[in-house]
Amino acid sequence: MAKNNPLSLFYVVLVEPKNSGNIGAVARAMMNFDVENLYLVNPCELDNVCYARAMHATTILDNAQTFSCFKDAIETLDFLVATSSIESKTEKRHLRNPVLLEEFSEKIFEGKGKIGLVFGREDYGLYNEEIAACDIMLKIPTSECYPSLNLSHAVTIVLYSIYLRRTCIPTRRRSLGCLEKQKLNEFFAQLLDDIEYPAHKKEHTKILFKRIMGRAMPSKWEYHTLMGVLSRTKGQIKRKKGKKR
Amino acid sequence: MAKNNPLSLFYVVLVEPKNSGNIGAVARAMMNFDVENLYLVNPCELDNVCYARAMHATTILDNAQTFSCFKDAIETLDFLVATSSIESKTEKRHLRNPVLLEEFSEKIFEGKGKIGLVFGREDYGLYNEEIAACDIMLKIPTSECYPSLNLSHAVTIVLYSIYLRRTCIPTRRRSLGCLEKQKLNEFFAQLLDDIEYPAHKKEHTKILFKRIMGRAMPSKWEYHTLMGVLSRTKGQIKRKKGKKR
Repeated sequence: MAKNNPLSLFYVVLVEPKNSGNIGAVARAMMNFDVENLYLVNPCELDNVCYARAMHATTILDNAQTFSCFKDAIETLDFLVATSSIESKTEKRHLRNPVLLEEFSEKIFEGKGKIGLVFGREDYGLYNEEIAACDIMLKIPTSECYPSLNLSHAVTIVLYSIYLRRTCIPTRRRSLGCLEKQKLNEFFAQLLDDIEYPAHKKEHTKILFKRIMGRAMPSKWEYHTLMGVLSRTKGQIKRKKGKKR
Repeated sequence: MAKNNPLSLFYVVLVEPKNSGNIGAVARAMMNFDVENLYLVNPCELDNVCYARAMHATTILDNAQTFSCFKDAIETLDFLVATSSIESKTEKRHLRNPVLLEEFSEKIFEGKGKIGLVFGREDYGLYNEEIAACDIMLKIPTSECYPSLNLSHAVTIVLYSIYLRRTCIPTRRRSLGCLEKQKLNEFFAQLLDDIEYPAHKKEHTKILFKRIMGRAMPSKWEYHTLMGVLSRTKGQIKRKKGKKR
């Protein structure tokens, strides 16, 4: 594989895969599209079926990192992408409010940092709290009659779409700083507290903010400026409150 | 499935598939992308593994037409597309001289007639005479290190690529009205005033906010939520200022 492979930024994260054949098929698809990093959260055993389906991609299986929980797996990643072919039509819409795969692939090389492509269980997909932990939710367009893709097919489509744009790297890239992102989200959450935002709306609004920022992929500079505004806003509110007392 | 489905023109033709699981996986992928017609040339037995992998797409298997030779299968089709991830570098180059998948998908709906998407054996792909019988040769871009896709993955990628172009898919629901965008920017500008943001930084920070929102393209719902947060924040600051006086 070429050095400075732009696809080395991508980490395929499989959450609790139950079918070992699928894991092997995912490894093969990864090698087909020059993506090497595989994270497995609480997977089934990587048995002979798994290795047979991987064909020439056994190294990816051998080098896969295994985690016992989702939280540990995502800790070192800078930008998290939840995938689903299912769009929620319930009140949790904005939790799942998705970005279409092709739009995502057009933009994703603008950023720097480790990008986790998170795929859920074969039967239940990702749980809401796992989706909430991700920066954006990706939608792969599929038939309304039967939207549910096989796991390795979903991975294949996403990797193919990204692979097509691998050469679209702009000269200056925005770093998707994980720490700055966390801090901005924390600041926003604190602001909601400070302005006595209705408690029952808080969680939704926090996730909505996260989704907006996830889509915008701000640079470090933009993060710092926004944090400056938020911090000053909070300062003003606090100061008034202090004086009030 | 919608009537006048533009994808009913497409016929997936599997030539001598040896792995019954692959055939099931292909059927599932077909249903995921509203393609119904499956032709099988001298296939292995469609056993339980095949039906298990097809999941909800067993009707496609039941309705599949089986042929004993390639020539019979292609007789009723109007336009034949051979697929391969491998590009020949030998003297047979012109035989295999391929069209890239994305170029093909852009154009294919311009024509009328039955279109056969022909996929070869898991091990040997398509023979030269089979490729020669096809109108074009399609290339799916893949890694030079390991170009060979799993059969059902190859079918999935081709169908996904075609599916995307079946109509003009509504680009996104997050189109932001010009007025709302202006209002959001105004609110943000007012907030900067309210928090006594340094005057010499104001213009830059306003533009930065605009750029971030421009990239995020918030939905109406997201816009209203953000406006709610900003408006409440301003209200709090104003109230404290009022009390201070």
